[in-house]
Amino acid sequence: MFDRKQISDELISLIRQIRLVVFDFDGVFTDNTVYVFENGKEAVRCWRGDGLGLRKLEHLAITPIILSTEKNHVVKARAEKLRVHCESGIEDKYARLKEIIEERELRFDQVAYVGNDMNDFECLAAVGFPIIVNDAHPELSLCARYRTKTPGGRGAVREICDLFAQILSKR
Amino acid sequence: MFDRKQISDELISLIRQIRLVVFDFDGVFTDNTVYVFENGKEAVRCWRGDGLGLRKLEHLAITPIILSTEKNHVVKARAEKLRVHCESGIEDKYARLKEIIEERELRFDQVAYVGNDMNDFECLAAVGFPIIVNDAHPELSLCARYRTKTPGGRGAVREICDLFAQILSKR
Amino acid sequence: MFDRKQISDELISLIRQIRLVVFDFDGVFTDNTVYVFENGKEAVRCWRGDGLGLRKLEHLAITPIILSTEKNHVVKARAEKLRVHCESGIEDKYARLKEIIEERELRFDQVAYVGNDMNDFECLAAVGFPIIVNDAHPELSLCARYRTKTPGGRGAVREICDLFAQILSKR
Amino acid sequence: MFDRKQISDELISLIRQIRLVVFDFDGVFTDNTVYVFENGKEAVRCWRGDGLGLRKLEHLAITPIILSTEKNHVVKARAEKLRVHCESGIEDKYARLKEIIEERELRFDQVAYVGNDMNDFECLAAVGFPIIVNDAHPELSLCARYRTKTPGGRGAVREICDLFAQILSKR
Repeated sequence: MFDRKQISDELISLIRQIRLVVFDFDGVFTDNTVYVFENGKEAVRCWRGDGLGLRKLEHLAITPIILSTEKNHVVKARAEKLRVHCESGIEDKYARLKEIIEERELRFDQVAYVGNDMNDFECLAAVGFPIIVNDAHPELSLCARYRTKTPGGRGAVREICDLFAQILSKR
Repeated sequence: MFDRKQISDELISLIRQIRLVVFDFDGVFTDNTVYVFENGKEAVRCWRGDGLGLRKLEHLAITPIILSTEKNHVVKARAEKLRVHCESGIEDKYARLKEIIEERELRFDQVAYVGNDMNDFECLAAVGFPIIVNDAHPELSLCARYRTKTPGGRGAVREICDLFAQILSKR
Repeated sequence: MFDRKQISDELISLIRQIRLVVFDFDGVFTDNTVYVFENGKEAVRCWRGDGLGLRKLEHLAITPIILSTEKNHVVKARAEKLRVHCESGIEDKYARLKEIIEERELRFDQVAYVGNDMNDFECLAAVGFPIIVNDAHPELSLCARYRTKTPGGRGAVREICDLFAQILSKR
Repeated sequence: MFDRKQISDELISLIRQIRLVVFDFDGVFTDNTVYVFENGKEAVRCWRGDGLGLRKLEHLAITPIILSTEKNHVVKARAEKLRVHCESGIEDKYARLKEIIEERELRFDQVAYVGNDMNDFECLAAVGFPIIVNDAHPELSLCARYRTKTPGGRGAVREICDLFAQILSKR
C-alpha cells in the first residue's frame, strides 16, 4: 500500500499513459545472482508474489513483457510459469524494444521499462516511464522516474504492479 | 522464549481456544522465493527448525495443516517430510477452509490461520486467531492479531509453535 | 583474529583442556535452511571457509566430529568433502555423545559441543565447553560459554577453529 | 560510479601499471557458500553483473584469470560461461601465480590479485595491487591496497572492473 501523499501528480500522469511494461529479467525478477551447477546448468531465485502482481496489471489492460540479453533457458522457464511473453538472448535490447513498440503501434511515452544494470540504460532513457529496482547499479541512479523500495527478486516486480493497480483502479 | 509480560491476556485467551492451525505455504514455510531451473522445475527454501515446532503443536492436541494455491509438488514434498496434512493447488482458499472447518466439526474461533499475502486475506479475516509473518505483504498489516518476529522460512512457523507451547504447557 | 584482551583467562583454560569438538550439523555447518526439490530431495548451504578451519583443529591434535539427528544424506555428503567423522540419524544425541566420549576414553570436560537448537540442550549442558552459534534458538542463550560472532553456515565453524588455533598455537 | 575525490593518486598509479588481474574464485565470484546435494554434487551462487565487468577489463587490454584451490567442476563451469581462463585444483597458489607471471613475461607489480581468505595471503603479499572483497577473512584486513565496497558474489568482481574502467578510460 502506497501512501497517496507520497505519490506525486506527475507520477500519476505518467502511469495513466502506460499500456506496456517491459521488464528486464536478471536483477528485476531475480536478485541478480545465478546458481551454477557442476554441469554448467543454471538456476535463478524469483519471488512468489510476482504472479499476483502481473495478473493485476493485465486486469488493468496493461501488458507485461520480459526482454533479456541472457540466453539461458531459466528466463523462458520463469516467464512460462508467470504466463508472460518473453524474449531472451536479445543482444541489442534498445533496437528490439523499438521494434516491439512499433509492432504494437504504441509510442515510447506509453511504455514503462524496468531495469537494473547498464545494458538497460538506452531503454530506460527512451521510454516514458523509466523504473529501476532498489539495488540497481549505481550508475543508473539518475535515469529513473521511480526507484522501487524493494530489491529485485524480493518484491520489486510486485511493488510496481501494486503501484499501477493502486493508481489506476481509481480512475 | 517469549517475555510473559509482553503476552497479553487477550492473546492467551485466543490461543487457549485453538484446535487447528492452518498454514499457507509460500512465504510462511519459505522465504517466499522460488528457485527456478532450466527445465522449469522448482525448489524452495525452508527452515530446519520447523519440524521440532510442529511436533510440539501435536503434543498439545492442536492439528497443523497446510493449505496452498501453489500447484508445484514442492509443497507436498515438504509437507511429507514434516508429516503434516497438506492441500495444494487450492484456487479458493477461503471456500476450502470453510469446508475443512465443517468436516472437522470445529468453529472459526477455534482456528488460527497463518498467511503472508493478499490471497490469504479472506481466511485471515474469518478465523479466530489470524497470524501474519513478519515480512507479510504490507496490505495485510492491519488484519492480524499476531505478527511473528521472525520472517517466513526463517523461523516464523517455529515461533508460532513455540508461542502456543509456552502458553498451553502451563494450563 | 580475536582481540586477546577480550578472551578471558577462563576461556583459555577451558579451551586448553579440549580434545574433541562435537558439532551439530544443521544450523552450525548450515544456515539452518534446507532446499526442497519437487522429488523430495534436499540440499543445504555451507561455508567454503570451514575446511581450512577443520584442518587447523587437526593440526592441534583436536578431533572434530559431526553428530546429527537429520537422516538426509546431505549431512554425510558434506562431512565426506570436509573429511570429518560423521554420525547422522541419531535420535538421542546425548546418549550417543556419552558413548562416544567413553569409546574415546575421554571425560566430558575434555569435550566442546557446538549447537543451535533445543535438541542440543542436553549435550551443551553436559560438556566442558558448550558453544552456540550466533543465531541459535533464543532458549539456548544461557547455556553456552561461548557464542560465535558469525552465524551458522556463514563462518561459525571457522570462527571456532580460528579461536582454538589462536589460543593453542601459543602454548 | 566512484567519487573521483575518494580515489587517491596512489591508487591511480597502481592501476595504470596493471596488465593481469588474478581472481580467487570462492568468496570472490561467489558469496563463499556452497550448496551441497544428497549425492555430493555442489553448486555455487554467482553475480550476473560480473560478465559485463570482465568484458570492460578486456577492452582495456587487461587480462582477467581465475586461480582456485577448489577441485569441484563448478569453478570451471562458471569460468566457461564468463569466458575467462581458469585454473582450479591448484594446491600452491603462490607457486602457480609466480609461474603464470613468468610465462606471460610480466612483473609482480603489473599484477592485481583479488582474494578473500588466508590461502590468498602469499599471493596478496606478492603482487603490486592486492585487493580483498568487503567480507574477506578478518586476518586479511591489513594486507590489501583496496577493499571492495560490495561483498564477494554480490558485486565485488564487477566493482573492481568498474574501478579499472573509470580510471583507465580517461588516460
